[in-house]
Amino acid sequence: MSIESLKKSVEILCIGTEILLGDILNSNARWIAQELAELGLPHYIQTVVGDNTRRIQEAILNSSRRSNILIITGGLGPTPDDLTTESLASLFKADLYKSEEVWEDIQIKLKHKDEKLAKCNEKQALLPIGSKIIRNPRGTAPGVIWTPKSNFTILTFPGVPSEMKAMWLETAKPWLINSGLVNEKFKSKVLLFSGISESRLSEKIEKFLESKNPTVAPYASLGEVKLRITANSITDEQADKMITAMEEKIIKRIGPYCYGSDADTLASTVIKLLQDKKKSISVAESCTGGGLGAELTSIPGASKTFLGGVIAYSDEIKKKILGVPAEILLRHGAVSEATVEAMAIASTQIFGSEWAIAISGLAGPEGGSALKPVGLVCFGIAGPNGCKTFQKQFGKNKSRGEIQRLSVIHSLDALRRILLNGY
Amino acid sequence: MSIESLKKSVEILCIGTEILLGDILNSNARWIAQELAELGLPHYIQTVVGDNTRRIQEAILNSSRRSNILIITGGLGPTPDDLTTESLASLFKADLYKSEEVWEDIQIKLKHKDEKLAKCNEKQALLPIGSKIIRNPRGTAPGVIWTPKSNFTILTFPGVPSEMKAMWLETAKPWLINSGLVNEKFKSKVLLFSGISESRLSEKIEKFLESKNPTVAPYASLGEVKLRITANSITDEQADKMITAMEEKIIKRIGPYCYGSDADTLASTVIKLLQDKKKSISVAESCTGGGLGAELTSIPGASKTFLGGVIAYSDEIKKKILGVPAEILLRHGAVSEATVEAMAIASTQIFGSEWAIAISGLAGPEGGSALKPVGLVCFGIAGPNGCKTFQKQFGKNKSRGEIQRLSVIHSLDALRRILLNGY
Repeated sequence: MSIESLKKSVEILCIGTEILLGDILNSNARWIAQELAELGLPHYIQTVVGDNTRRIQEAILNSSRRSNILIITGGLGPTPDDLTTESLASLFKADLYKSEEVWEDIQIKLKHKDEKLAKCNEKQALLPIGSKIIRNPRGTAPGVIWTPKSNFTILTFPGVPSEMKAMWLETAKPWLINSGLVNEKFKSKVLLFSGISESRLSEKIEKFLESKNPTVAPYASLGEVKLRITANSITDEQADKMITAMEEKIIKRIGPYCYGSDADTLASTVIKLLQDKKKSISVAESCTGGGLGAELTSIPGASKTFLGGVIAYSDEIKKKILGVPAEILLRHGAVSEATVEAMAIASTQIFGSEWAIAISGLAGPEGGSALKPVGLVCFGIAGPNGCKTFQKQFGKNKSRGEIQRLSVIHSLDALRRILLNGY
Repeated sequence: MSIESLKKSVEILCIGTEILLGDILNSNARWIAQELAELGLPHYIQTVVGDNTRRIQEAILNSSRRSNILIITGGLGPTPDDLTTESLASLFKADLYKSEEVWEDIQIKLKHKDEKLAKCNEKQALLPIGSKIIRNPRGTAPGVIWTPKSNFTILTFPGVPSEMKAMWLETAKPWLINSGLVNEKFKSKVLLFSGISESRLSEKIEKFLESKNPTVAPYASLGEVKLRITANSITDEQADKMITAMEEKIIKRIGPYCYGSDADTLASTVIKLLQDKKKSISVAESCTGGGLGAELTSIPGASKTFLGGVIAYSDEIKKKILGVPAEILLRHGAVSEATVEAMAIASTQIFGSEWAIAISGLAGPEGGSALKPVGLVCFGIAGPNGCKTFQKQFGKNKSRGEIQRLSVIHSLDALRRILLNGY
């Protein structure tokens, strides 16, 4: 490959033996790749190497010959197998200095945990002379922005995703935007869908998927589909216009499936709809065991809207606390629309909430029958106009965790539609 | 890096622009990495490039200089941007031939899906002369095992995970086992720790981290630390012995922090401890909103042990359902040891469980004060001998989700210790 073709380009190097052992998915590379795509920075190669100085150095050397920005994750921890900074320094024959600023920050952070300051954390304050610090708001390992040779700048991040992301958004992304590499404005917006499969959705908007600018790219996760609209233009305003125009065309075709955009979640959408109506909600969960409540509680400020719930995992508790009539459990069983109806209505009464969601199902792997196979989940949604119940068969091939997660998503999407369109 | 050090080694090259755009996670690389680790085949480098002939060829060329097995996924499809086979052939100046065997297989498979045979599928029957076919039981794209130069063999797979995995298990894995590369047995075991930081843990077992065989490698995730012990030997038995010996030395030093190994979780460990004692548990959750219940419910068969819980998010509910005295909430506040004690004891009474965990804290981002900052969480663990309460400050830098997750982990670990050691 011609070297020129890759000048002004970016690479990602992820360091960690646990990735090579297959112990963890390399989600950092994907997240950074999405960020780079949004910035419109060409990104041609990703590399993963283990915690080994020579291999780290070879990877960095190769990259320095074909690209001019290298983003490194991993190897900034306090333990002996964290080698990124030392490897960089010795490769480019630079000295490390102890940053008092970083060292103080580490001491403060470790004091919070009442544990005596671990000596080995001191090495996290050692940085290449001449490097710019990427402060870590979430942990003790700072990163650096360092240009060891002309036309080649390295950005380092810890491997812990939450720390890497915070450092990227706070320091690295603004730096990249101002680096002169980003000459066009790339803007993107992610539309979020539930209740429709990726293939169904793609069919309905097939021609938009061929659009070159803005581009429209679908990708699916469990129970949800995302559409990323990315426009590039010389001005933000122009890019925004292009995105809005495409968004309107998409919404016209599949609007009812769209629950939000970008950082929204089904839970945040439902909480907002309830807050707008000044209504409250409670939950009664069996097979999800609190997962729905936790999803609602994950939204800051949810406490004003989400009053609480009952995790009624056993029939005894369904009777004793939720007052589900014994004969309903006897005649219809715990996994039945009659039972979730009783659970949902009881929940509104106990918590004094206008709305309630009840879930009871067979998450497996045991407990299925011919009549009620694993994957069968019943939902009850009680509101001012009574209780709507329905059931869903998520399929036997789904894992316990997937069935629980799909139940939470499905119930929130059902309430969202009811809040928007009524029963 | 010395070339020799990498001889008899394997690399993975994943081809696909969608990976570079961050549209999909590179789950193929992880799956293959796990397979290689099991086989004990050293695997030092992973690379990802897009659908671009020159970059594909440079990646293969680099690999051919340092490794002797290259596993390639992606780029075997019928469309113009599938370039793997052509790139290989032209790089090593080999000719392609049309495999009638493969072509017939493709025709049969496409006839099955009543769709007219796409002309472009014909290119999937073109293979390098001298290559061995890896038949694809799930799709139309076959792979090859091909040795274009001495000491360098390439295995190709489509990017579709289900097809790649089937081909790996049916053809590639047996071939690798018989390749003569697999001469040592590699076995590994992961020990799981909670309640200790990665740096503290590493300090306590520093000298073991330098061990060459078995190796001991730590890595941290939110609230937990893992230690992977990997031994290689000529026999499984010998490898197991080495792992057990190292495990005993580690446990002797930091045993109390170790809650399990491999596939265990804190929840599965706690459920098992309770099942062994034939005791049951319930929960009363405020700031975690059901996350603790969901974690317990994630364990198959938990229903025998986990009876249920109350998500008491508002003070009203804490009073009304859990009967927390108004004066306790008034004098000590909802986030206090007095409140979680009342919550935990009430939970055992309501659910008739021997044990109960109560959690109340400030997950933020709003609601903190000088006296009770965001990140402060109170825990109550009620059991046969009364209720133990304590509080933890997880630090203001943690996100809402992290504080909620850490609260769940911390409460389960506390109960684990109590179940093992008493109050």
